[in-house]
Amino acid sequence: MSDRSDLTHVTEEGDAQMVDVGEKPDSDRRAVARGRIDLRPSTVEAIEADDVGKGDVLAVARVGAIQAVKHTWETIPMCHQIPITNVETEFSVDEAGVELTVAVETTGKTGCEMEALEGVSTGLNVVWDMVKAAEKDENGEYPATRIHDIEVLAKEKRELT
Amino acid sequence: MSDRSDLTHVTEEGDAQMVDVGEKPDSDRRAVARGRIDLRPSTVEAIEADDVGKGDVLAVARVGAIQAVKHTWETIPMCHQIPITNVETEFSVDEAGVELTVAVETTGKTGCEMEALEGVSTGLNVVWDMVKAAEKDENGEYPATRIHDIEVLAKEKRELT
Amino acid sequence: MSDRSDLTHVTEEGDAQMVDVGEKPDSDRRAVARGRIDLRPSTVEAIEADDVGKGDVLAVARVGAIQAVKHTWETIPMCHQIPITNVETEFSVDEAGVELTVAVETTGKTGCEMEALEGVSTGLNVVWDMVKAAEKDENGEYPATRIHDIEVLAKEKRELT
Amino acid sequence: MSDRSDLTHVTEEGDAQMVDVGEKPDSDRRAVARGRIDLRPSTVEAIEADDVGKGDVLAVARVGAIQAVKHTWETIPMCHQIPITNVETEFSVDEAGVELTVAVETTGKTGCEMEALEGVSTGLNVVWDMVKAAEKDENGEYPATRIHDIEVLAKEKRELT
Amino acid sequence: MSDRSDLTHVTEEGDAQMVDVGEKPDSDRRAVARGRIDLRPSTVEAIEADDVGKGDVLAVARVGAIQAVKHTWETIPMCHQIPITNVETEFSVDEAGVELTVAVETTGKTGCEMEALEGVSTGLNVVWDMVKAAEKDENGEYPATRIHDIEVLAKEKRELT
Amino acid sequence: MSDRSDLTHVTEEGDAQMVDVGEKPDSDRRAVARGRIDLRPSTVEAIEADDVGKGDVLAVARVGAIQAVKHTWETIPMCHQIPITNVETEFSVDEAGVELTVAVETTGKTGCEMEALEGVSTGLNVVWDMVKAAEKDENGEYPATRIHDIEVLAKEKRELT
Repeated sequence: MSDRSDLTHVTEEGDAQMVDVGEKPDSDRRAVARGRIDLRPSTVEAIEADDVGKGDVLAVARVGAIQAVKHTWETIPMCHQIPITNVETEFSVDEAGVELTVAVETTGKTGCEMEALEGVSTGLNVVWDMVKAAEKDENGEYPATRIHDIEVLAKEKRELT
Repeated sequence: MSDRSDLTHVTEEGDAQMVDVGEKPDSDRRAVARGRIDLRPSTVEAIEADDVGKGDVLAVARVGAIQAVKHTWETIPMCHQIPITNVETEFSVDEAGVELTVAVETTGKTGCEMEALEGVSTGLNVVWDMVKAAEKDENGEYPATRIHDIEVLAKEKRELT
Repeated sequence: MSDRSDLTHVTEEGDAQMVDVGEKPDSDRRAVARGRIDLRPSTVEAIEADDVGKGDVLAVARVGAIQAVKHTWETIPMCHQIPITNVETEFSVDEAGVELTVAVETTGKTGCEMEALEGVSTGLNVVWDMVKAAEKDENGEYPATRIHDIEVLAKEKRELT
Repeated sequence: MSDRSDLTHVTEEGDAQMVDVGEKPDSDRRAVARGRIDLRPSTVEAIEADDVGKGDVLAVARVGAIQAVKHTWETIPMCHQIPITNVETEFSVDEAGVELTVAVETTGKTGCEMEALEGVSTGLNVVWDMVKAAEKDENGEYPATRIHDIEVLAKEKRELT
Repeated sequence: MSDRSDLTHVTEEGDAQMVDVGEKPDSDRRAVARGRIDLRPSTVEAIEADDVGKGDVLAVARVGAIQAVKHTWETIPMCHQIPITNVETEFSVDEAGVELTVAVETTGKTGCEMEALEGVSTGLNVVWDMVKAAEKDENGEYPATRIHDIEVLAKEKRELT
Repeated sequence: MSDRSDLTHVTEEGDAQMVDVGEKPDSDRRAVARGRIDLRPSTVEAIEADDVGKGDVLAVARVGAIQAVKHTWETIPMCHQIPITNVETEFSVDEAGVELTVAVETTGKTGCEMEALEGVSTGLNVVWDMVKAAEKDENGEYPATRIHDIEVLAKEKRELT
């Protein structure tokens, strides 16, 4: 028995809109998202082969993720611009690829799960970009590369007194 | 037998860099990427319940995807800004969620698979944002929502004569 | 008996500046702006011919208007970045064209009429862009297309207690 | 006898899209747009009262217009990013307000009338912003301020040989 | 006896991060930065030769500086977006070049010295851009042009009660 | 005997403008800029103390520099957007601070020295931001930190045949 009123950003007439948050109190909010990119074993080795090299691949992805968090209000059309007070990024490299977890905190009037999702999906795309040559086959295709399991792990909210 | 030279955007010293494309010829290039977002059946019904409402959810996601394609050079730190000549977006709604395919064409000196990937991942994030209220459970969590199977389907290249 | 001190963003020496709002209290503010684009009758028919098509022309213009509201601090050089809490857009299609009304709300230290004006003028420009082929004559000119009557309809302000 | 195919940026299915310009030749193109802002006589006097002051009001508007031209591909969702080779801005101040003419030139694959329109509407909005204090009445409203007659004056195109 | 914990934006593991400012109180903060560009005497004369011309060179640099202040959170990867309440710019032209001082004020949770530095370095770069033709020698080189002595002059902080 | 015509971006009437590059041929161009930031010896030690830590401070600065190069057309108001084909960054750490050299290449119609300068000044500002805690004295001031000697080292141009 669903109806359109379940769609956050759509009016009764079906028009897209931003949600009115003017009456919402300021609150401490935190959201955590996670996702994975599958890579060839040889690419994972290349990432891990050298501390500096690894530092740079993941360092660039980390910067890309943080910047994406801050740009969410531009990238996702109906998102509000909220004050981001903290961003934590954690990359975990295993033999099958890289997992990225992004936690975002805000003191604003609305949640920050879209910011965490933007951080994860952009960070994983940056990893892809950094290892393109290693992942391509002889035809320039990417038979093994895949981004998946992007999800929101946790959300917290505490009203500011 | 992998080494760092397999990493596209890393110098021999391990520093991040853009690839020098000055010597590359202009060419017609096309890349297609695809991904999915799993949604609750009731959310899919809500999206489909009304032509206008559906139009707007997917229309906003379509705009978000197209804008993300054009902004790839800003979002992915080592990407070049290339002339995008065409963007095609196709949403397919089934009972389990939404699939998005994005094709990008350019006449530039480097490929456009990152642009297609950015279009897909952003478009799916916009869908998520538009249906947040319908996907949340009573605790504000997203037990069913998940983005996955983002991959590059095809790449083509033809040198301009 | 006017003098330069009437110009909001100009110092006594005639230099451009942002207004210092550090001492201003936070307040609830709302501004409404409106404008029109004149179109050929056949273009209006084309917009109205199909719900989905109409949905998309106006949906893209709506997204463009909302994004322009949020980007006002970048587009208008002396504007401050203020927290936008709500944006309402309303398109009215009649036989002679399209009228767009944009209402913006903020809880910041300065008014939001420039945000509302940016929403209106950008939204109308997007409509123009979407119907270019229908409005052009055989020489590629636009004899009938015109944007006019952009004005601020209302402003409200209530100090937060 | 209009139909949706008259709408430049809408597919047969009614979905928004960018136009495919991959097959279009490079060409020299020029577009000129113009618009007006009506102001109180006292505001016009204030603008004209001092060369430096006038310089700064219009100088800021000029910068705003030029930047808006370059940002059109971001502001108008379905626009392509094209190489802008020249922007000319001309302000004409008379007793009733300010008229702004913007000419844009490109060597790209598509026209630049949207760029010229963006330059005009943004430049006029910047003028409004710069003279807010002079235009407001005692209630903070703008009884006399109005932007109108925004139109495309001319378009030219010459294929590059 | 230095260690990595002295580096503001680096975790114990050596990863880049934004600083968590969630627990910091809102406060009034002000930062002032200053820098110089050395120019040929003939360029300085050209800047000063005409009030309007001078107005425009410095007016464009002033707009560039103010915009750079507002964009610091995008340009400096680990910076937070903070509410800028005031920006003051002062250009001082002497026979050897131009000195630019930028003061920035915020009510946010973190300091604004990076914003002031961004304003100074961008404003000086804009001056360089505006006088390129006057500074180049016959080989297109810039033997005399140099930006230097960019420093933070003062910082103030007062907790909001 | 200088006059305003020596100022690149100013019309005869003294108005700011972009230079018309429509008639200029495409050419291979390269520009190299360099600058320094002075730091406390203990900060330099902290940067060098750990490969990963050093990697991250400079890696973030490198990303900031490359992004600044690509954004020059937005940051410097009268700059054209040109196709950047290559960016090389080189950091040199000595006991007194960090020196940054940025080389930029383009195939466009105008030079890229402003892009190289933007890369240098932004990269040095990012270093400053990353080591703020190490450079501040007990009063939160920066007695030792200073950016200087920013200059254009070389420019090259070769017409494309």
